[in-house]
Amino acid sequence: MKLLERLRKVGFSKLTLLEDALAELHSYLTVIDNEDIEVSTSLNRILAEDIITNMDLPPFDRSAMDGYAVKAEDTFGASQNNPKQVIKIGTVEIGEIIELIIEKGQAIRISTGAPIPKGADAVVKIEDTEIDNELITLYAPLAPGKNISKKGEDIVKGIQIMIKGTELKPEHIALLSSLGRKTVKVKIKPKVSVFSVGDELIETGNSLEPGKIFNSNTSMISNLITLYGGELVRGLTLPDNKETIKNNLDKAINDSQIIVFTGGTSVGTKDLLPEVIHENGTVLTHGIAMRPGSPILIGISNEKVVFCLPGTPVAAYICFLKIVGPTLRKLMKCINIDPRVEVKASIEHDIPVSSMGFLNFLRVKIEKKEDDFIAIPVKLKGSGVITSLTQSDGIIEITPNLEGLKKGDNVIIKLFPK
Amino acid sequence: MKLLERLRKVGFSKLTLLEDALAELHSYLTVIDNEDIEVSTSLNRILAEDIITNMDLPPFDRSAMDGYAVKAEDTFGASQNNPKQVIKIGTVEIGEIIELIIEKGQAIRISTGAPIPKGADAVVKIEDTEIDNELITLYAPLAPGKNISKKGEDIVKGIQIMIKGTELKPEHIALLSSLGRKTVKVKIKPKVSVFSVGDELIETGNSLEPGKIFNSNTSMISNLITLYGGELVRGLTLPDNKETIKNNLDKAINDSQIIVFTGGTSVGTKDLLPEVIHENGTVLTHGIAMRPGSPILIGISNEKVVFCLPGTPVAAYICFLKIVGPTLRKLMKCINIDPRVEVKASIEHDIPVSSMGFLNFLRVKIEKKEDDFIAIPVKLKGSGVITSLTQSDGIIEITPNLEGLKKGDNVIIKLFPK
Repeated sequence: MKLLERLRKVGFSKLTLLEDALAELHSYLTVIDNEDIEVSTSLNRILAEDIITNMDLPPFDRSAMDGYAVKAEDTFGASQNNPKQVIKIGTVEIGEIIELIIEKGQAIRISTGAPIPKGADAVVKIEDTEIDNELITLYAPLAPGKNISKKGEDIVKGIQIMIKGTELKPEHIALLSSLGRKTVKVKIKPKVSVFSVGDELIETGNSLEPGKIFNSNTSMISNLITLYGGELVRGLTLPDNKETIKNNLDKAINDSQIIVFTGGTSVGTKDLLPEVIHENGTVLTHGIAMRPGSPILIGISNEKVVFCLPGTPVAAYICFLKIVGPTLRKLMKCINIDPRVEVKASIEHDIPVSSMGFLNFLRVKIEKKEDDFIAIPVKLKGSGVITSLTQSDGIIEITPNLEGLKKGDNVIIKLFPK
Repeated sequence: MKLLERLRKVGFSKLTLLEDALAELHSYLTVIDNEDIEVSTSLNRILAEDIITNMDLPPFDRSAMDGYAVKAEDTFGASQNNPKQVIKIGTVEIGEIIELIIEKGQAIRISTGAPIPKGADAVVKIEDTEIDNELITLYAPLAPGKNISKKGEDIVKGIQIMIKGTELKPEHIALLSSLGRKTVKVKIKPKVSVFSVGDELIETGNSLEPGKIFNSNTSMISNLITLYGGELVRGLTLPDNKETIKNNLDKAINDSQIIVFTGGTSVGTKDLLPEVIHENGTVLTHGIAMRPGSPILIGISNEKVVFCLPGTPVAAYICFLKIVGPTLRKLMKCINIDPRVEVKASIEHDIPVSSMGFLNFLRVKIEKKEDDFIAIPVKLKGSGVITSLTQSDGIIEITPNLEGLKKGDNVIIKLFPK
């Protein structure tokens, strides 16, 4: 363990660039299987098939209005001074097919969504007519096709309308349902184990002892896993004990695709995780040029991805957003592996950067000023300060080559995931 | 039923403004009870208590680095040419309390997060030292307080850090956990029944008959209810039959706070919902000046809110975003009743508005062009076109007094809810 002894003494000698670390890690990812589930329960799942339309939508010409189906030519020349009249010969309701054929001078009462009767080529809105028994008076002409939704207007049969890797939202569920789909192929949710490591950690609900703190990382990371589409297998607090860590790693390797540790990953004397991962797998990266979050370790153990995140909650949170979350979604072959929304704003005041060469994460609150969005940096007293997250809306990423930001600079804020 | 007969003939004579309809409806809302749940399972729930801190965070002065706790004065004047030396007298690990007190010329090895030993007022990073047995050499001076997270630095006891109505996200869960909270008071999820009404509707998974369409509204609205924090009690398809509608309304009134119908709400001959709601409660609004979505009906029946949305999926979707969803969240006393994210962009080309006096909803796709976001209107062929939702990112709301948008205008896009 010469390497670790040296690390403990000198800290991180070499930091990897974030994009390099991710590229290497993602080259190791295995394939997650698909499953068929009910469309109605597919919210937030990742589509695992391309969707090709199996029918036209609408499946027939239908009325877009409540009114009368007519021959457009019967309305030509109609005006307030020169109204035209047609005779109602029947009614077609939504969901019905009628055999009646409209001839010149005739009309059929029709509901929105009902099939257009044969012979008709336009629908006049009920508001634009007067009716006296069966005699209908119109005051304006209609172009052929007016108020008719043509067969295939929305969707034509045989085209691709959704691609693999789409995250399914209510609008996608509506579209699948409108094509008659009851089930859909999605990625199985990757299984994830979460462990917080540290003798200083007390479980919530207990009383706090001197020198100890409550464990907040397990619940935070577990809920981020849920939010990003993973399935939590276990979320535990572990002591700084090599054997306990090793045993739990073994268990997690058996039933999880991703294993997340927080704490014990830096170069303190009790930071046992680098040692455990070295002994039970391959360390891909230890130390990334980002602040906060630099002590992160990424490893592979029995083909499972192991992340060891710093124990300070904000660093762990940011490591999740930038590394764990995108990996989880990459595993599901998501098109969009970083689901955070980007918002444009201008920065309120100068922000010098003290650590060039690092990707710096600036937490900001967004204020709307007239038509502008202003990014207001949240005052920080340490990277562990959780209130810096609850009091801000998102993060500006300051690339390693920048010395900082100047007041008024246009910036992109990546909002916290919702 | 004179009113309805007239409506069926003339359509909507008077449309209400959206804000007026919402204000009236929200004055009728009842109170939803609270419940205590585990913090770890509170993701996306609505906080029902103000959170006052019960402790300082960190609860003690602690080290922000792995290194040596020292007296800062022992480092004053240190430089490469004039190094200073201190003697290591012990080690303090994270989670431990030690009794040792640091005197002048002494140091204690300390891990990140460990309590600062008595007598020390700074921590030197391990990377900035050389150690030879117990003799530690430093090459730079430290200011008092350096690398120490002071007790209460993040949170001071007795202050309010979260307010009622906050939607709980992983960062809030972390904050609650760090205060030792195992349970939290949240709003009970409002119970919601969803019905799609129409003889033309076929359930997905069956084969399509002539003149019929698959029901896509039940699954879409049900999943929107879930996304907005409601609890779905039932999601059903009903025929155009007054008694069936009435019976299902009665059932829903018994066990739901909100009842959503889609379809059958306009002025067609089969549009039975206005009649049913008139006979079983109070119609607050029928017809709102918005496009799409104008035929919406809002009613109260036995103190429960009843929404009758248009049957065209896009109109139903937009009515949900603007009316049903915000009401659901208002019921939970959410601070932010419309959870959609706003993004600034400029519009790609002129958009004339054909229906002034209406709140118009323009579906747009966002494209990033260099530093700018461009809003590209999605080509529409009808308000029922679901692909206009799956192919766009959000909606621009064009207020009733605007004649349209001019190319290059700054616009606010409200993204679809995620």
